[in-house]
Amino acid sequence: MSKKSNFNNGIGTSRSAMIEAILEGGPMSRSDLASKMNVAKSAITEISHDLIQTGLLHEVSVVRNSLQKGRPSVLLSLNAGRGCFVGVDLADSPRTIMLTDLLGAVLGECEIAGNGNPETVIESIHQGIQRITRPLQGSAREILGVGIAISGFVNHASGVCVYSAALDWHDIPIGELVAQSLGLPTYVDNDANAVAIAEKLFGKARELRDFSVVVLGATIGCAHYIDGQLYRGANSGAGEIGHMLATPNGLQCRCGRRGCLDTVAASVAILAAAREANLPVNDLKDLEALATKGNSQAIAILRKAGEALGLAVASIIQVNNPELVLFANVAGFPTGLFTVTTRQTIENNILPRFLASTRLLFHDVRPSFLARGAACIAAHKFLFEQTGRSAIVRP
Amino acid sequence: MSKKSNFNNGIGTSRSAMIEAILEGGPMSRSDLASKMNVAKSAITEISHDLIQTGLLHEVSVVRNSLQKGRPSVLLSLNAGRGCFVGVDLADSPRTIMLTDLLGAVLGECEIAGNGNPETVIESIHQGIQRITRPLQGSAREILGVGIAISGFVNHASGVCVYSAALDWHDIPIGELVAQSLGLPTYVDNDANAVAIAEKLFGKARELRDFSVVVLGATIGCAHYIDGQLYRGANSGAGEIGHMLATPNGLQCRCGRRGCLDTVAASVAILAAAREANLPVNDLKDLEALATKGNSQAIAILRKAGEALGLAVASIIQVNNPELVLFANVAGFPTGLFTVTTRQTIENNILPRFLASTRLLFHDVRPSFLARGAACIAAHKFLFEQTGRSAIVRP
Repeated sequence: MSKKSNFNNGIGTSRSAMIEAILEGGPMSRSDLASKMNVAKSAITEISHDLIQTGLLHEVSVVRNSLQKGRPSVLLSLNAGRGCFVGVDLADSPRTIMLTDLLGAVLGECEIAGNGNPETVIESIHQGIQRITRPLQGSAREILGVGIAISGFVNHASGVCVYSAALDWHDIPIGELVAQSLGLPTYVDNDANAVAIAEKLFGKARELRDFSVVVLGATIGCAHYIDGQLYRGANSGAGEIGHMLATPNGLQCRCGRRGCLDTVAASVAILAAAREANLPVNDLKDLEALATKGNSQAIAILRKAGEALGLAVASIIQVNNPELVLFANVAGFPTGLFTVTTRQTIENNILPRFLASTRLLFHDVRPSFLARGAACIAAHKFLFEQTGRSAIVRP
Repeated sequence: MSKKSNFNNGIGTSRSAMIEAILEGGPMSRSDLASKMNVAKSAITEISHDLIQTGLLHEVSVVRNSLQKGRPSVLLSLNAGRGCFVGVDLADSPRTIMLTDLLGAVLGECEIAGNGNPETVIESIHQGIQRITRPLQGSAREILGVGIAISGFVNHASGVCVYSAALDWHDIPIGELVAQSLGLPTYVDNDANAVAIAEKLFGKARELRDFSVVVLGATIGCAHYIDGQLYRGANSGAGEIGHMLATPNGLQCRCGRRGCLDTVAASVAILAAAREANLPVNDLKDLEALATKGNSQAIAILRKAGEALGLAVASIIQVNNPELVLFANVAGFPTGLFTVTTRQTIENNILPRFLASTRLLFHDVRPSFLARGAACIAAHKFLFEQTGRSAIVRP
């Protein structure tokens, strides 16, 4: 039986389930897996044998202390060294490329140049990969896939960037272009989905089934996991909260309408408002510092942003009742007045019963978190493609 | 092997899949099922044999016309006569009780009396069941379960009404009380979930995986199907759009806050606003008639309601990107200005790409639609409980 047909038969689901169990709970014994997955231990033995053969899992011995008798405990763990993944963040400026192992640990990263021209972007990715893999020369690590995160509308199945305002791209088959150029499986998704995948696989949402991620960046992004799966919506449009109405007849948005959340609460909008008010600020931290000193304009701008974001998130909570709303702060949003206003606005605009059932978590991350998310797109595909779940862009 | 253990083994999923396929596509041949379910025809034979044994499916012969050769085609169909279900609508006034067959067809209905006292409600249900089953006396139809729809917060797994403002109930184990009193499996859910289940099982959303239902009633309810399953949220709170902020510092809502959607767009609120304006109206149709004649106050009230509802639904669409938003109009909302304003507000407040990917459908239903939805809760449990998917309140 060929590897492929083997992967596509009934056991595929069980393999996925085992990988999921270990991603959620960390390395564990076969007995614990049997109990967590609710299947017979003989099945665990068979499935784990397969996954060890493919190199996805390996055994880790845990030596007991001298007071305990019996053999050392053997845990099954994901094999971080099975290969590595390249993540490319085209959503942010500066653009970043990153190398991670199978568990999302960062092996290297650098900025890449490039305007919006796809050929230039691909050339930059080539150069970036050479730089970030240099320290690994001589090691046997294989690059298993490339993930690309884009701000905009992406057909994740075909790898086509349908539209990105930031890149000025319309219908660019960037996944196929990069796959052909590099000879590596390449996957494309939007930035918020990339962050959600990263938080689910290796981050703060590993054990959750239902959560939303709100990406605080140059724009406001959002993605949902529902019942343990990334939920994209009927036409990959779920999570477009940046264009929810925040201020009737407000500022012009690049979508053509007025007063969208992005025009009030995105980092770019907040800084534009500060400049408009002639405040001497270079970044959001400067603005927070001014507010802390009592500058009324700075206070008003941050409050307005936090209130708009809070109302949008209150809507998410009352529409979907997630276990957690995880704010991934990739643009250095200040953690004082802005965060407090956001949290209070949410608390004041949801039913009291949601206060207990939906947690809010502000997660300050490095700007390169998006590139790591991009690498996680590829890691996720690699871990689960063998179950026939995912479409793949093949080189 | 006992029936129960048989139901709980691997074949359960396949049985569910077959029932789902027939619910979605209607009666079909074994070959069509094999193709739709993507399993071997031998497996179809085995699963359908089981389902015919339990009486859930039966065979229907379709005689071909004289020009066609060969044997008549045999289709597998859900067996409407397998038994019937009682649905109790405690969300609306007047309260209604209904009897349906396995396919949701109405066999009988009547109003039931009763204040908020659980004992009185149960007594009313007893009397109601006697009335609606009288025409069936002598037939072999068995009542397979009871469903109860409540406006408020319900723990559907335990059958406890956690809180209902309309009934003034706190932590009433109504499912268990009714189950014990009637000796029938009883299931409780909120009214919007009941409507969503009815639309998915037998209604306008049979073939959809991702859709939202908005119930236009005395309050505004909402429920979501995501990936073919009712999505309840982390704490059964998904769909609480009646308490999304519509008018900052607006009218007092019974939730304790101000300006919730319910205070502007629910039927009770619209009629209260009309009375406040001294308009001579008894119901929403009267108000629409006034608006059609050019009464500026009637126009303003309906526009305000439609705009508030439209903005809330625009949020749902940008958060979840469903294939369809289905407005179940149970309270006789007028289909003129109110509907047009709602639709236009949605269209003006979503990104253009959603215009094509999310359909809007206004579905005028009889007030007893909620009772039918309640019966569908029980039908759904009966159809799928054998797969181990659902918790059951047993008599």
